[in-house]
Amino acid sequence: MDPARDAPYGLIAAGALVLEGERIAWAGPEAALPDRFAPLVAEDLGGRLVTPGLIDPHTHLIFGGDRAAEFELRLNGASYEEVARRGGGILSTVRATRAADLDQLVASALPRLDALIAEGLTTVEIKSGYGLDRDTELRLLRAARRIAELRPVRVLTSFLGAHALPPDYAGRADAYLDEVCIPTLRAAQAEGLVDAVDGFCETIAFSPAQIARVFDAACALGLPVKLHAEQLSNLGGAALAARYGALSADHIEYLDPAGVTAMAAAGTVATLLPGAFYTLRETRVPPIAALRAQGVPMALATDCNPGTSPLTSLLLTLNMGCTLFRLTPEEALAGITRHAARALGLQDSGVIAPGMRADLAIWDVATPAELAYRIGFNPLHKRLFGGRT
Amino acid sequence: MDPARDAPYGLIAAGALVLEGERIAWAGPEAALPDRFAPLVAEDLGGRLVTPGLIDPHTHLIFGGDRAAEFELRLNGASYEEVARRGGGILSTVRATRAADLDQLVASALPRLDALIAEGLTTVEIKSGYGLDRDTELRLLRAARRIAELRPVRVLTSFLGAHALPPDYAGRADAYLDEVCIPTLRAAQAEGLVDAVDGFCETIAFSPAQIARVFDAACALGLPVKLHAEQLSNLGGAALAARYGALSADHIEYLDPAGVTAMAAAGTVATLLPGAFYTLRETRVPPIAALRAQGVPMALATDCNPGTSPLTSLLLTLNMGCTLFRLTPEEALAGITRHAARALGLQDSGVIAPGMRADLAIWDVATPAELAYRIGFNPLHKRLFGGRT
Ligand SMILES: [Zn+2]
Ligand SMILES: [Zn+2]
Repeated sequence: MDPARDAPYGLIAAGALVLEGERIAWAGPEAALPDRFAPLVAEDLGGRLVTPGLIDPHTHLIFGGDRAAEFELRLNGASYEEVARRGGGILSTVRATRAADLDQLVASALPRLDALIAEGLTTVEIKSGYGLDRDTELRLLRAARRIAELRPVRVLTSFLGAHALPPDYAGRADAYLDEVCIPTLRAAQAEGLVDAVDGFCETIAFSPAQIARVFDAACALGLPVKLHAEQLSNLGGAALAARYGALSADHIEYLDPAGVTAMAAAGTVATLLPGAFYTLRETRVPPIAALRAQGVPMALATDCNPGTSPLTSLLLTLNMGCTLFRLTPEEALAGITRHAARALGLQDSGVIAPGMRADLAIWDVATPAELAYRIGFNPLHKRLFGGRT
Repeated sequence: MDPARDAPYGLIAAGALVLEGERIAWAGPEAALPDRFAPLVAEDLGGRLVTPGLIDPHTHLIFGGDRAAEFELRLNGASYEEVARRGGGILSTVRATRAADLDQLVASALPRLDALIAEGLTTVEIKSGYGLDRDTELRLLRAARRIAELRPVRVLTSFLGAHALPPDYAGRADAYLDEVCIPTLRAAQAEGLVDAVDGFCETIAFSPAQIARVFDAACALGLPVKLHAEQLSNLGGAALAARYGALSADHIEYLDPAGVTAMAAAGTVATLLPGAFYTLRETRVPPIAALRAQGVPMALATDCNPGTSPLTSLLLTLNMGCTLFRLTPEEALAGITRHAARALGLQDSGVIAPGMRADLAIWDVATPAELAYRIGFNPLHKRLFGGRT
């Protein structure tokens, strides 16, 4: 996936890799392997494909409960009102999350993470946002840090206090931001729990002006920002995010040309979430051609969450990116490697090149396109996290 | 899934099962367990959900090569003509299949079958149809029988000589049927290789009159029939199949009300294939409401094939059946258990009840709806094939 290599996917045929500790020391055609590496112990990968370890740059992996009952209610014809009356929707997840202690949150998230790891994931982003009160938001972020100790993956956290408005603040979004969201962000940052700050900019969530206040607080703390933007309508969220130099604007089905231009100018990554598009039976596709034309890097992510994308497969995300959004397999694979790393602000991941972390996935496939082409099949042979199995 | 039980899914809370050899001897609430079973050695399943082993009633699991390169070509903007000029399409699979010997066909199919088995599959249907000549069609069916010896699953074969027209018979479909398809069917049946006879009724394949000739040959051999029908247009294939008392009519996105009525009267199962619908980005959904209203049993299947559904997950098929076709989770689960058994003419599978085969899947879930709700997650705890692990 190294763009410096002049080949589709940056592919090296008959390649060799030299690892030193947790880094890649050399990568290139085996025939060009420098003599100084000749004495090293070699492992024959049998002609398999090696890619960068997969990166999921947008998940809500940690939450209480599930929404299977709501899924079933809706398919049995219940209206949104009826689902809400029976306690469904995001607030049901908030209730279940608040009721779960840290150990329970970790225990319920681990099988989801393990499903991702089984497909070659080595880095994952995890958001808070199902607490919407100080204690629970902090607990979610602590759970994410705990998870990073329990599994050999890299976890990056995003504080998403501006995810939804809790019922006790109905009609008082600004008060929620002042009294809960922003103070909790500061407390979380003081505890070392925050790698980035996220928000949900939508008519059903927070306005651009409210998101700007959260971003101002993030900037004051020196934290990078990102945004759920233009998922259901066009509020100009992506352009707002770009003004703050955001790492990424995510979803963006309803992004307009001005938003694309703003993202391109700011270097903001477009993180596409086909699992939510699929689950919500959305018909409006993100403006892929415009993003491509203006050179906006496109990442892909599971958006793993209990309501709109209960998805724990990056390989399926890859296929959905191609099938539903018409990405090429090469764009899709960049979306869960190189561009996903960029969406997380990582300089040392997502590409196979000297100096990068030896986060690698080794596959039983003949060509990279097979990873995107197959549906519900896992050809992973082996993975390395920082050079270790 | 026993319809005799008056509960959603036929669910038995706090249930117990008694197995005797490869059969289920008793099933019911643990509190009602007859005394005569008390001395048996018991295994505590820890409150897990037990379902019938999953049944995939429509696959093209055995073929040579793959179509990843074609998938990539199309996403890079190649036209159908260009793909055809570069040797793509179904005939590329026919070429690769003809070039593969039996061992190669078996070896390439096993990982796909193993992916299905890993999700609780215990019975699978496998079609021929990528040979289109006598030797290769027979080899595909022999490979299916071989696979049944190598894995502890039940395999049912369908002869699909009328899948596509080989190039050497272009414009001479009737000659192909007379000279290749029907004689090969007779030879395959004489060798004990055929459990049912299938066809593809479509403008790009065979006409209803031609399919009728294949079905006449099948009936003369005492073999049940089924049909790929109304996938791309409405030729009345399902009604034709119903006139032959077909086990199933499959795809049926373009089925009309008369076809639904004919299927209902004949007891023909509607086998829905959401993986092909998804891959082809079809927008016309099968007439679910009409099928439901007229009591046509609906099965679900992967349609695993290299061109239009490279799908090897029945759990994802379950989710797609709900998400894309708006089946309820209960209908979807019946589609890969009870109704899938019926689509294969099996009397002893797909339901947990005394006398049925002890083909069982044991799941780490709290409710059956979770199986359909999650995407790309496998909660299988354990499976039993005829009572054995
Ligand atoms: Zn999200
Ligand atoms: Zn088929």
